[in-house]
Amino acid sequence: MSDQVLPHGAGNADNAAHWLDAVRWSVDGLVTAVAQDAESGDVLTLAWMNRDALALTAATGEAHYWSRSRRRLWRKGETSGHVQQVEEIRLDCDNDAILLRVKQVGGIACHTGHARCFFLRFEDGHWIDDEPVLMDPETIYGPG
Amino acid sequence: MSDQVLPHGAGNADNAAHWLDAVRWSVDGLVTAVAQDAESGDVLTLAWMNRDALALTAATGEAHYWSRSRRRLWRKGETSGHVQQVEEIRLDCDNDAILLRVKQVGGIACHTGHARCFFLRFEDGHWIDDEPVLMDPETIYGPG
Repeated sequence: MSDQVLPHGAGNADNAAHWLDAVRWSVDGLVTAVAQDAESGDVLTLAWMNRDALALTAATGEAHYWSRSRRRLWRKGETSGHVQQVEEIRLDCDNDAILLRVKQVGGIACHTGHARCFFLRFEDGHWIDDEPVLMDPETIYGPG
Repeated sequence: MSDQVLPHGAGNADNAAHWLDAVRWSVDGLVTAVAQDAESGDVLTLAWMNRDALALTAATGEAHYWSRSRRRLWRKGETSGHVQQVEEIRLDCDNDAILLRVKQVGGIACHTGHARCFFLRFEDGHWIDDEPVLMDPETIYGPG
């Protein structure tokens, strides 16, 4: 182990968890996590991770997040089957944002049935939904 | 104007600012903003916008952010010249994350002189800096 591989202020303790200590968690214990389709390059989702979510993502190779609304750990696709298989995990320069390159199982990342969450485009003072719904949410999640 | 173009709970008042009201600002008045290179698809930066930053981004076609550390509005590239020319502004399904497609002037998005901020890759329990520094930060910003 050299200093070179942990250049951004993290401790150098020789234990399996130190890479998690390099992350600059918010006061709520979270970091933002962007998921990008490994093939198309499309940005699919923006979500949040706590320490457990990032550890599980690395350990299992499937994206795990922290749901701020439901206040619980969440394996992406646990209900829908639309799992994100993680090919790469990156961290940014100030250590508070994660970038995943993923294979999006089912080709649907968004709970609305769109391929990705960023389906609204700004044009002339409006947000326009310009990407198709690929599957009815009721089909994905069941009624109500 | 139809309901169709503002499907996500925003008011339909006929004024120029209503698209900003559609954004679900945090209690701090911010949203996350991901910038993606329009040509390569690389995710370059993750930053924050307040209402003024998003309004200026749309009005000027150059990415503006809110610096949480310096607590001020910030035109990306104002010191370095590494401006982000915005080709597209998108919003996500729950209206609290922005995605910009940008032309990154100078080919350097990160203050460290890397092409992008996500230059650390997770491998075997370490964060490895696997992308080159294209320009010394002292050259970009001047000494100290």
